[in-house]
Amino acid sequence: MHAITISAPGGPEVMSWQRVPDPTPGPGEVIVDVVATAVNRADLLQRQGHYPPPAGASEILGLECSGTISSVGAAIGLDRIGEKVTALLTGGGYAQKVAVPIGQIMSVPPGISLIEAAALPEVVCTVWSNLDMTANISEGEWLLVHGGGSGVGTAAIQIGRALGARVAVTAGSAEKLQRCSHLGADVLINYHDQDFVDVMMAETGGRGVNVILDNMGASYLDRNVRALARDGRLLVIGLQGGIKAELDISMLLRKNASVHATSLRGRPESEKAAICAQVERTVWPWVHAGVVHPIIDRVLPLKDAAYAHQLLADGQVTGKVVLSNT
Amino acid sequence: MHAITISAPGGPEVMSWQRVPDPTPGPGEVIVDVVATAVNRADLLQRQGHYPPPAGASEILGLECSGTISSVGAAIGLDRIGEKVTALLTGGGYAQKVAVPIGQIMSVPPGISLIEAAALPEVVCTVWSNLDMTANISEGEWLLVHGGGSGVGTAAIQIGRALGARVAVTAGSAEKLQRCSHLGADVLINYHDQDFVDVMMAETGGRGVNVILDNMGASYLDRNVRALARDGRLLVIGLQGGIKAELDISMLLRKNASVHATSLRGRPESEKAAICAQVERTVWPWVHAGVVHPIIDRVLPLKDAAYAHQLLADGQVTGKVVLSNT
Repeated sequence: MHAITISAPGGPEVMSWQRVPDPTPGPGEVIVDVVATAVNRADLLQRQGHYPPPAGASEILGLECSGTISSVGAAIGLDRIGEKVTALLTGGGYAQKVAVPIGQIMSVPPGISLIEAAALPEVVCTVWSNLDMTANISEGEWLLVHGGGSGVGTAAIQIGRALGARVAVTAGSAEKLQRCSHLGADVLINYHDQDFVDVMMAETGGRGVNVILDNMGASYLDRNVRALARDGRLLVIGLQGGIKAELDISMLLRKNASVHATSLRGRPESEKAAICAQVERTVWPWVHAGVVHPIIDRVLPLKDAAYAHQLLADGQVTGKVVLSNT
Repeated sequence: MHAITISAPGGPEVMSWQRVPDPTPGPGEVIVDVVATAVNRADLLQRQGHYPPPAGASEILGLECSGTISSVGAAIGLDRIGEKVTALLTGGGYAQKVAVPIGQIMSVPPGISLIEAAALPEVVCTVWSNLDMTANISEGEWLLVHGGGSGVGTAAIQIGRALGARVAVTAGSAEKLQRCSHLGADVLINYHDQDFVDVMMAETGGRGVNVILDNMGASYLDRNVRALARDGRLLVIGLQGGIKAELDISMLLRKNASVHATSLRGRPESEKAAICAQVERTVWPWVHAGVVHPIIDRVLPLKDAAYAHQLLADGQVTGKVVLSNT
């Protein structure tokens, strides 16, 4: 098969379309013929050599895909061959074929094309595992989503709303904030000229935000803790603003609050399978019902992955960039 | 009635036994004639002016007591009068009488004297709310208790064991570690000459500790995060080592871990009632069965509260100092 490979850690130019060996399915795995994959910010870090794949995972980039099961490993029924699926991957999506543990295979939400479906697994599993499984967000709570225009951000707005939360977002342009508003965000904060702590304290009558989904890490840590309500939960899923910062533990203690930092890729297979099962049961019906939409900035050929990475690095993307094999 | 009052923020010498007005029971409250109360580290901070009581709470120190219900407010049946009880207080325990919301009244575990019972509410509610309600510690997990010889520490060892955890402790003397061992701690770490990260990594085959109950805060934050296992939970309940420290969020993220900071006193009445109800249902039977013992360093007259504070400040105490009115 062909896949995007990396000659050496570096910029987008190190990626190229090369012939590589086909993957073979291990026990409990299937091979998916990839129709489309999608770009995640983690891919950019991995390309630069900052986010090595876990032990045993493919060296090829790509954390999600859609496609068709073309062969199966031991312990998987042959009747699965030909099934159209989406998949949460530990790697290997930027390719024509990928091996996937069966627990990370999900159906395609009814009424959704395989191209659109490729934009869903990573963001939906990230958002669901954080908002529901970790933070247990409840109806009427305030959710603040940083980077509301990102792939994860656009999914978080919609899933937050579907869970009954009131949603605020930060983003860096009026256009992105406008998109967030259309997706259901109630409070729109342009981080260039507004302080989200001030805005959220005003919006919540001084009580603060119950749940924050944060992609910045260090640079936002102190302000995030200040913006939290009593019993608030800060969920850090990205470190775009650095990795280390001072934590005011006494403020956390006065608020009875918590800081969680999670990533999807490093979780054991059993946890990924549990997340996928919940997503299929709970979020796919919302997708089918039109409550949660895949938000796609554009669809590019997989061979143009380098260009896609550049777009994401430049902050020019709202929602997902899908990479298609067709 | 008489109570210990504070002339001005300061050392133990600012406390004295004075005549003060009797408390009156508000709706949903009862008056407890205090047989005994007990000293908490938070009392020392409050005496120094560093930990003001929440709005509406008594200015008198004392977060727990045992005694007899002597009168009741609106909405409480007269048949409660005469009942022997323990109570989790928001303040007011260093006195002959205290007003208590009915949800914070608990029974006395069968077979336990009122003097011993006064040593239980604060530490047991703190430990239960953290280990079970926040961290959801499960059988076979590793629990590291800092300050294993303290009141909370001695309760955490026993309740951790009762919940099926394997327990490690830090303490500052061989005698305290010996006491911790008798209470069920498997791993004993003298913080003067051992690094708890090294010890726990060795003890867990490099996997780390699942749950840490920490009374130090800032000075231990970095090492606590390093000692955590994947999915680990750090529970900060004290700030004896300072309030602000650098958090390595990337390490937290790689471990899918979380930092929680909790205090009991600042929680709303409804949460305190929920904690008390669970403690009565789950922990009191363990106390009755001899699985969890009140650990009492000594019993002093309430009038000698100043001396009791000095003992705690000097680190000379293992378990609780009870202050008796009789």
